[in-house]
Amino acid sequence: MADQDAHNTVGAEPPALPSLRWEEPPEGPVLVLLDQTRLPTEEVELVCTDVPALVQAIQTLAVRGAPLLGLAGAYGVALAARRGFDVDEAAAQLSGARPTAVNLGYGVRRAAAAHRTACEKGADEEGAAAAALEAARELHRQDAAASAAMAGHGLALLDELLPGGGHRILTHCNTGALVSGGEGTAFAVALAAHRVGRLRRLWVDETRPLLQGSRLTAYEAARRGMAYTLLTDNAAGSLFAAGEVDAVLIGADRIAADGSVANKVGSYPLAVLAKYHHVPFLVVAPLTTVDLGTPDGAAIEVEQRSGLEVTELTGAFSAAGVEGGSGLPVAPLGTQAYNPAFDVTPPELVTAIVTEEGAVSPVTGTGLAELCARSRRVTMS
Amino acid sequence: MADQDAHNTVGAEPPALPSLRWEEPPEGPVLVLLDQTRLPTEEVELVCTDVPALVQAIQTLAVRGAPLLGLAGAYGVALAARRGFDVDEAAAQLSGARPTAVNLGYGVRRAAAAHRTACEKGADEEGAAAAALEAARELHRQDAAASAAMAGHGLALLDELLPGGGHRILTHCNTGALVSGGEGTAFAVALAAHRVGRLRRLWVDETRPLLQGSRLTAYEAARRGMAYTLLTDNAAGSLFAAGEVDAVLIGADRIAADGSVANKVGSYPLAVLAKYHHVPFLVVAPLTTVDLGTPDGAAIEVEQRSGLEVTELTGAFSAAGVEGGSGLPVAPLGTQAYNPAFDVTPPELVTAIVTEEGAVSPVTGTGLAELCARSRRVTMS
Repeated sequence: MADQDAHNTVGAEPPALPSLRWEEPPEGPVLVLLDQTRLPTEEVELVCTDVPALVQAIQTLAVRGAPLLGLAGAYGVALAARRGFDVDEAAAQLSGARPTAVNLGYGVRRAAAAHRTACEKGADEEGAAAAALEAARELHRQDAAASAAMAGHGLALLDELLPGGGHRILTHCNTGALVSGGEGTAFAVALAAHRVGRLRRLWVDETRPLLQGSRLTAYEAARRGMAYTLLTDNAAGSLFAAGEVDAVLIGADRIAADGSVANKVGSYPLAVLAKYHHVPFLVVAPLTTVDLGTPDGAAIEVEQRSGLEVTELTGAFSAAGVEGGSGLPVAPLGTQAYNPAFDVTPPELVTAIVTEEGAVSPVTGTGLAELCARSRRVTMS
Repeated sequence: MADQDAHNTVGAEPPALPSLRWEEPPEGPVLVLLDQTRLPTEEVELVCTDVPALVQAIQTLAVRGAPLLGLAGAYGVALAARRGFDVDEAAAQLSGARPTAVNLGYGVRRAAAAHRTACEKGADEEGAAAAALEAARELHRQDAAASAAMAGHGLALLDELLPGGGHRILTHCNTGALVSGGEGTAFAVALAAHRVGRLRRLWVDETRPLLQGSRLTAYEAARRGMAYTLLTDNAAGSLFAAGEVDAVLIGADRIAADGSVANKVGSYPLAVLAKYHHVPFLVVAPLTTVDLGTPDGAAIEVEQRSGLEVTELTGAFSAAGVEGGSGLPVAPLGTQAYNPAFDVTPPELVTAIVTEEGAVSPVTGTGLAELCARSRRVTMS
């Protein structure tokens, strides 16, 4: 019966979240983006017909999230090629749209390389453009496959750690389809649990200052029909104390070689709370997030963001809104704010790191390195 | 030299924060309130000439904070008496303005009792009104004296725990002159450290959802010229990890007989972080906060507030703003939020409870009971 219910649930699911898709209407190819600055109140699509429009969408945060930015960059190169624009110039514009976004540059380079290789092999303009588009689509498929694999490994681990089922999962920030070519990382695990009827509650941290939890994760959870409840970040403590959290699931911005996890600010206090209450703390991230060149947590540089994100409230989740100081002031003029973009959780507080190649638990540098090596063998074979 | 610098600092201080004061212009007595809903952007005073105006100020949160509400209630009774209104009716209106505010009712009863006693002893209208006003003033003086005593005990304890000086103190919510007839509780200790040149930094948690930290504590710190920095509640973890917090100082809404502390939501996670990082966690509260009738933390009932405080952003810190649903939605329509007003910290996570009669450390039911008994002896003698 449980299986049948689960199948019914799947049948009633909305179509996959169209955070980004390639379309080919008669007027020529376009890249269609879900404008994330308008969520959750409005679902508005942006249709980009050229690279400047896409660059603007990236800069205003209409499209955001590391893996998704990689796809935007790759499809952007394909768009320029198909529309007959200069591909090198387009690649440079896209790569520079947000200088610190590593995935964006990676996606751009991958599509541009495919385009160049095709040209070198004697392809015409159309053939080279097709190669760039195929590179973008390949990246998209890989991202979706990695999400699906992480969801599978994560759910298996959850079921092993919490044999009773009925998981009550706490999550932070946004890690779903809005940041990914697939269903995401931590959110994808919760969604997988929901699909088999084993998610009792998704606790969604609002995630100050930019409220990715309330704006985006709650939006995705509502859209999927998951049982979710929103809370301020500092209310999580009461939930732990009341025994209402069975596991914490978060994503990662970067994982150092020793297993230290940099993620959205507020992750580390959750890890300390989880440790204190003997609750599993799981990090779900693709192996591309593991940076073996960074030895440990201390070597991870933490971006400090504008204090205006804290001293002013803004309704629009856009770069203009948060950087332009156009919000509603809630602190005295001249107030300085400490506003780190993320924090670092040491490996001893992480129960497991779940990747598309499986989980590392306990989290050790050796375990991580082995998983990375296995992934490279798979990629090369 | 340090002392001289400290004296210079004191000399340059602004006048005490006029959150509430009694005035007697030729047109008749008035109660003047600092409108806390307009802070920190505007300093606007409300002049109440009668009880309905004061009731409205209480209901819109123009005046708030437990001890300050007690003073508002007591002065409100005196205002009614001096202006020739029915005192019993005024007392009933004031007591009912916010049903759950214990201090409000206490202040009203104290001034009304003084008025009644004077009448019974044959005082005329003027004499009875003077008695009510004197009761309000006495409550005001007691509150200010308790603040000063807590500040002294708290600073002595800080200096004992942190002999190096240069304290970096993290605080949560608002516990200063805006909630008190004096300089407050936890904030008063930080202010005392500032006056003697031993406050290196006051870390101010913004305190979601109602932002009492950014709106009110930052305002008070700025006004006093203290070195302060604002942060989102979930950024505190990074500060602890970086060794940037020497002590946590918070107030209390209620303290159970076993030393469990109910305070603004977000206090408990700070206590867990403090424990994990071996940082002292101090609770500063008058003995009136200790409720010997509540045996332990489990017996403290936690108020659940409207989810709209979390699902909508509001610029005005008023009852109308937060309860009327007139804010800017930041979560999908229909999102349910878990929004407890406070959380409970068990005594084993509290380094000391600092009261006007001295500190209890380690925190035990016996120690608390002794302090309460001493306080009663002092009051009765």
